[in-house]
Amino acid sequence: MAPYIARRWVEFAHTDQAGMAHFSEFFRYMESAEHELFRSLGLSVVQEWEGRRISWPRVSAAFDFEQPLRFEDEFELHLGIERMGESSISWVVHVKRDGLHCGTGRCTTVCCDVTDHSSLARMPIPSEIRTQLEVFHVEKEK
Amino acid sequence: MAPYIARRWVEFAHTDQAGMAHFSEFFRYMESAEHELFRSLGLSVVQEWEGRRISWPRVSAAFDFEQPLRFEDEFELHLGIERMGESSISWVVHVKRDGLHCGTGRCTTVCCDVTDHSSLARMPIPSEIRTQLEVFHVEKEK
Amino acid sequence: MAPYIARRWVEFAHTDQAGMAHFSEFFRYMESAEHELFRSLGLSVVQEWEGRRISWPRVSAAFDFEQPLRFEDEFELHLGIERMGESSISWVVHVKRDGLHCGTGRCTTVCCDVTDHSSLARMPIPSEIRTQLEVFHVEKEK
Amino acid sequence: MAPYIARRWVEFAHTDQAGMAHFSEFFRYMESAEHELFRSLGLSVVQEWEGRRISWPRVSAAFDFEQPLRFEDEFELHLGIERMGESSISWVVHVKRDGLHCGTGRCTTVCCDVTDHSSLARMPIPSEIRTQLEVFHVEKEK
Repeated sequence: MAPYIARRWVEFAHTDQAGMAHFSEFFRYMESAEHELFRSLGLSVVQEWEGRRISWPRVSAAFDFEQPLRFEDEFELHLGIERMGESSISWVVHVKRDGLHCGTGRCTTVCCDVTDHSSLARMPIPSEIRTQLEVFHVEKEK
Repeated sequence: MAPYIARRWVEFAHTDQAGMAHFSEFFRYMESAEHELFRSLGLSVVQEWEGRRISWPRVSAAFDFEQPLRFEDEFELHLGIERMGESSISWVVHVKRDGLHCGTGRCTTVCCDVTDHSSLARMPIPSEIRTQLEVFHVEKEK
Repeated sequence: MAPYIARRWVEFAHTDQAGMAHFSEFFRYMESAEHELFRSLGLSVVQEWEGRRISWPRVSAAFDFEQPLRFEDEFELHLGIERMGESSISWVVHVKRDGLHCGTGRCTTVCCDVTDHSSLARMPIPSEIRTQLEVFHVEKEK
Repeated sequence: MAPYIARRWVEFAHTDQAGMAHFSEFFRYMESAEHELFRSLGLSVVQEWEGRRISWPRVSAAFDFEQPLRFEDEFELHLGIERMGESSISWVVHVKRDGLHCGTGRCTTVCCDVTDHSSLARMPIPSEIRTQLEVFHVEKEK
């Protein structure tokens, strides 16, 4: 079991006047890696499932920043699942540039039935999806 | 008849590593000024109207950049309507910082019936909305 | 002692296809409230100080999301300081819409000497700035 | 002579509540394609050149929108140079999804000496860079 690895580079629009990728971009990188992981399995974070529409809103997100990313830096997002509950997934991502550890992100998403647009109803993760995602389980760090 | 004046300041997240508000932010400033103008009239760019849901997608947008905006700069957006057609509105905005002209933006939006989410049907601008908007008519520049 | 209150509304560009302000925008709201707080004191997060240039990079940021914010929602950011160390500040922000609690954010920023653009040198918070900021101290929640 | 082709997909954070990539994202796509084109030549839009630092600020940008891009849509940016002046470049980009034409963007960038951070001095495009870029010349549309 190993994390999913997504590759990105820092676009000019991501930088701020301190010459680094703005901290809010790290959250967008984490999210797009999560979505790319779903796509790699033939899934989507917004999809029809047995007549219902399911999605994965997030209830929390956090990042520790260690090293800056700068314009045109190429980097990797190592994304794994630390815990999969009945409905929720706890993700962890490590941002690496040339082997240098630049930051660690975590977020928790919840499987929801969003068939009715105006509400979010928590639902159990369908077992087929659960099985597919399990390959990205990683050991929880202390 | 006079333009609507919206006031903004450049947030840190708007800047890029050149130390200026990123050019794409000018388009967001223009859009939020347009929406603030609608709100000032008690309208919204997404609203129910006689049982239909209307919105205003844009078919074009352009900006000429003259002077940069920098972090914490306070500036004004002078937004007016150069032309109101049967369904479309041609907006013009002048960005000013301490009286200095920093750029000119234009965009064209089209009144659409979006009741059916999957399609956009062009519709005539309702006459009550047209009347309210007309106060922001400005002379078209050569 | 009381938090600083900043007021914002959700712009169209902040929304995502789920019809809510995208979660990454909450981090930008938190940052711009922090910067507005500095401005309210006549300070800036990027300023000259006794011949040096100081800034406040963040080493961590986190948000718990409870209720969504939607297009045109007006909301308040209640921003306070939970802890002020020798060099670092631990901020907490509560997002409230019509009295409803929508989320809680936290971040830690570090006072740095950035005179030399290529490096960030941690430095003690100047005592005059510390004194000014102390008015926004809030009790640390359990 | 042919345009440069960059490939992208619409990330969730790019969408707005109308379920499309927000119009301002098209400008970011255009810019990142331009930067990718420079990278494909071993150049960068921010680089040292014979002891000076050169960059390419934009003086205008415009887009005509024809078809929306939606979440997870894969699309191509066909980027070419319509005109190369002494100092400036007029870019054109066509956005295509599965062969469907979704929009046309144009922008003009100016080669500037930015060695002195506080000013932008227009300079002639260095001849070696000019030669490399010429391969992306496309015929100007009427």
